[in-house]
Amino acid sequence: MKDEGFEKESAREPVEEALIEGRNAVIEALRAGKPVDRLFILDGAQDGPIQTVRREAKKRGVTMKFVTKERLDQLSETGRHQGVIAYAAAYAYAEVEDILAAARAKKESPFIILLDNIEDPHNLGAIVRTANLAGAHGVIIPKNRAVGLTAAVARTSAGALNYTPVARVTNLGKTMEELKKEGLWFVCADMDGSTMYQLDLTGPIGLVIGSEGDGVGRLVKEKCDFVASIPMKGDIDSLNASVAAGVLAYEIVRQRSFKMGGA
Amino acid sequence: MKDEGFEKESAREPVEEALIEGRNAVIEALRAGKPVDRLFILDGAQDGPIQTVRREAKKRGVTMKFVTKERLDQLSETGRHQGVIAYAAAYAYAEVEDILAAARAKKESPFIILLDNIEDPHNLGAIVRTANLAGAHGVIIPKNRAVGLTAAVARTSAGALNYTPVARVTNLGKTMEELKKEGLWFVCADMDGSTMYQLDLTGPIGLVIGSEGDGVGRLVKEKCDFVASIPMKGDIDSLNASVAAGVLAYEIVRQRSFKMGGA
Repeated sequence: MKDEGFEKESAREPVEEALIEGRNAVIEALRAGKPVDRLFILDGAQDGPIQTVRREAKKRGVTMKFVTKERLDQLSETGRHQGVIAYAAAYAYAEVEDILAAARAKKESPFIILLDNIEDPHNLGAIVRTANLAGAHGVIIPKNRAVGLTAAVARTSAGALNYTPVARVTNLGKTMEELKKEGLWFVCADMDGSTMYQLDLTGPIGLVIGSEGDGVGRLVKEKCDFVASIPMKGDIDSLNASVAAGVLAYEIVRQRSFKMGGA
Repeated sequence: MKDEGFEKESAREPVEEALIEGRNAVIEALRAGKPVDRLFILDGAQDGPIQTVRREAKKRGVTMKFVTKERLDQLSETGRHQGVIAYAAAYAYAEVEDILAAARAKKESPFIILLDNIEDPHNLGAIVRTANLAGAHGVIIPKNRAVGLTAAVARTSAGALNYTPVARVTNLGKTMEELKKEGLWFVCADMDGSTMYQLDLTGPIGLVIGSEGDGVGRLVKEKCDFVASIPMKGDIDSLNASVAAGVLAYEIVRQRSFKMGGA
């Protein structure tokens, strides 16, 4: 595939935030070899995860500064630093082509998660984390009205942002059209769809998850080949967006593993 | 079963918070017939969900007050009121027996989700939401070191707290022993377990989810009959706790529905 089909303007933009907060997020960033410029650690903290941070930082020659809780609170953007904050190179957005290349490199059918206007950084972070562990090759988010790769997203992704490419595009529908030319099928999550167990989700696939309040938008939904629903046995309307993404992503994992003869 | 086997002290305690914030949470509370004492709505808000709030409130004779955004921000405990805050009777903890009774009333094998020290209110709320929609009969949380039913939990549960009983116990391991006498099997989520697809999860079951940082504690894990793992194809360690709970709960839903001949 040629790059030109995809929107170049959305790729490789500088990201607003370069803070990594929280123990898991900092440990993963260090282990992934992410360039950490500065590392602030709570003075006197001695527990296991903090010792891991110190060991990993030492191994990589990262200078540590031991500071008070007040100083960390002041630096923190999420209010949840857990005693450690790193200043790292900002997370860069990938290109859609990078995601397809990742699938090709693994000789796997592409599996991409597309998010139609997720607004909550906790949900975006949890979905990138799920994408990584479910073996998706990347995540695509729209440019407008949706949350980007902020410090809170990095923290809740628990390090997955270091591995799983996230591309940001101006028009999700247009990107879907272009990906269809690459052989992808799109399944969107909505209540009026077929039960997910009844659909064949084993091919090259884009899983489309809607926003927290409004679900998948009409124009995006019209471009989907299938609509999949999660069985709902309760009294309320819908699952949390990141939970719904997880349940559907793992239905794809299950179907793919059984098709390949695994279990 | 007799009540005496379970810890009485943990049940029916008054809860610290009585604020319900956010449109979905307030709509669900009104629809569930929860007694709402006061209802504050953003003056001038006219969108669909707010109109639903007004209609439901009018139907039930709940007095509405139209206030400024500043007033709502001042009342808000979560900072995310979305233009509507209700003061309702506090969420009461259920008893473990209530959960078993709910299963009996539906003539279903009990399906309970047990949380070993979930600390993040967003995770607890999302898990109660998942429990409701996956058809679990209730959630059991420990008394110490874990988050309780706060306003943030109520909001992220999106109304599920009105339907799904949550019991709080002093000793999770002791409660598990007592539930085993009622015929329950316990499966705990951990990376060193058998892949979840290989286990039979169709009987009376307690699904045990560990805390965000430490997973399932040793003493609780020792009381589990099975350890189930979610296939991990990525680079990082673990899923978000509420996503993991959702993936495992829906594997139980899938196995139960196919055993019953559904799809």
